[in-house]
Amino acid sequence: MTLLHIDSSADTPADSVSRRLTGRFLTAWTARRGGPVRHRDLAADPVPPLTAAYTALGRRVEREGMVPPDKVPALLDGPAEEREWALTRPLIDELLAARTLLLGVPMYNLAVPASLKAWIDRVTFPGAFTDPDSGESLLRGTRVVAVLARGGGYGPGSPREHDDFQAPYLRTYFAGLGVTDLHLVTAELTRVDLMPHLTGLADLAARSLAGAEQRITELATA
Amino acid sequence: MTLLHIDSSADTPADSVSRRLTGRFLTAWTARRGGPVRHRDLAADPVPPLTAAYTALGRRVEREGMVPPDKVPALLDGPAEEREWALTRPLIDELLAARTLLLGVPMYNLAVPASLKAWIDRVTFPGAFTDPDSGESLLRGTRVVAVLARGGGYGPGSPREHDDFQAPYLRTYFAGLGVTDLHLVTAELTRVDLMPHLTGLADLAARSLAGAEQRITELATA
Repeated sequence: MTLLHIDSSADTPADSVSRRLTGRFLTAWTARRGGPVRHRDLAADPVPPLTAAYTALGRRVEREGMVPPDKVPALLDGPAEEREWALTRPLIDELLAARTLLLGVPMYNLAVPASLKAWIDRVTFPGAFTDPDSGESLLRGTRVVAVLARGGGYGPGSPREHDDFQAPYLRTYFAGLGVTDLHLVTAELTRVDLMPHLTGLADLAARSLAGAEQRITELATA
Repeated sequence: MTLLHIDSSADTPADSVSRRLTGRFLTAWTARRGGPVRHRDLAADPVPPLTAAYTALGRRVEREGMVPPDKVPALLDGPAEEREWALTRPLIDELLAARTLLLGVPMYNLAVPASLKAWIDRVTFPGAFTDPDSGESLLRGTRVVAVLARGGGYGPGSPREHDDFQAPYLRTYFAGLGVTDLHLVTAELTRVDLMPHLTGLADLAARSLAGAEQRITELATA
């Protein structure tokens, strides 16, 4: 019943809504279940950028068909690929071991932060999340709770709804991985104090945050 | 009339469609105009991840209103912020100096690579691209040519059209920066040889690549 808790905000918890919200989930979760919890901080400990050895290895694995992670070492060609695999395999194992993945995701420039995209680009290795016998996703039993903080308002019906490349992207990406138990919890208008054109929306921002807090507690204790 | 040429693929040119296509643009451009050209390779020379000092500085600048880059140094608070600004200012200056921005963008996990998102997250600094007097974008005269390579097919009317978070994202992001002269050139189905379910689409892939090559030559010599 491991919880994998990943934060991706560049801010410290004092300034980060997404970190405070994943912290709230964690508190409720551990009070209810104890542990174990694995925390990965993508800002303090960034996932290294991909290199040509990673993509060359990925192509070789794809050409072989469905190769599970245990059989990748036999396909490694040289020290650069060994290094890439040593950086990648722990991320895969952590995700496979998690019963619940808790993601803290601020919106940066309308999308997920580069820090989270670096994790996505590395962990999404060919064959890593597919049962080689059945062809089914190994993540179909995994619950994903993604906590989304956004400076502006992008909710359904709002003028900027179609500028949101954060929530729809995570829905599509995780569906592609075979995740069916996905929950997006959004806190909107988090930068209301910084943006003059959002003045007057402080009440709406407070309600959005309160709603997110309540939903997080429900999800953590369900 | 500077060209800023940015590649973001983790692959070497031998394996990268986007790098070969930006190379084709570059060849045609320099044959026609000479230079100058500034090349930035986001894989060989990754943009460093954001830190809390970057976001703290960004918030301070936003609170001041429209602060142009020249006035940011007066707002820096301590060596961590100085370091962040020293990493950021050259990216801003390069983009402001470019008459044309040429971007090579492979699709990784349905979106732009983390390497490019790291550039976007750092270069998009508050006030950097806004004329402090008129409030207008300083990039309204900049031509942006983004060359998009995608392993599958995501064109209009295709079954996976709505899984494309690469082209629509770049359109929305650059529109937000005030860029009006944006050209997206796409090469589709570039991984047709790797993906069994794409077998039979080799002709379509070849036509898509030929179309992209032709469009690139037109844009480079226009």
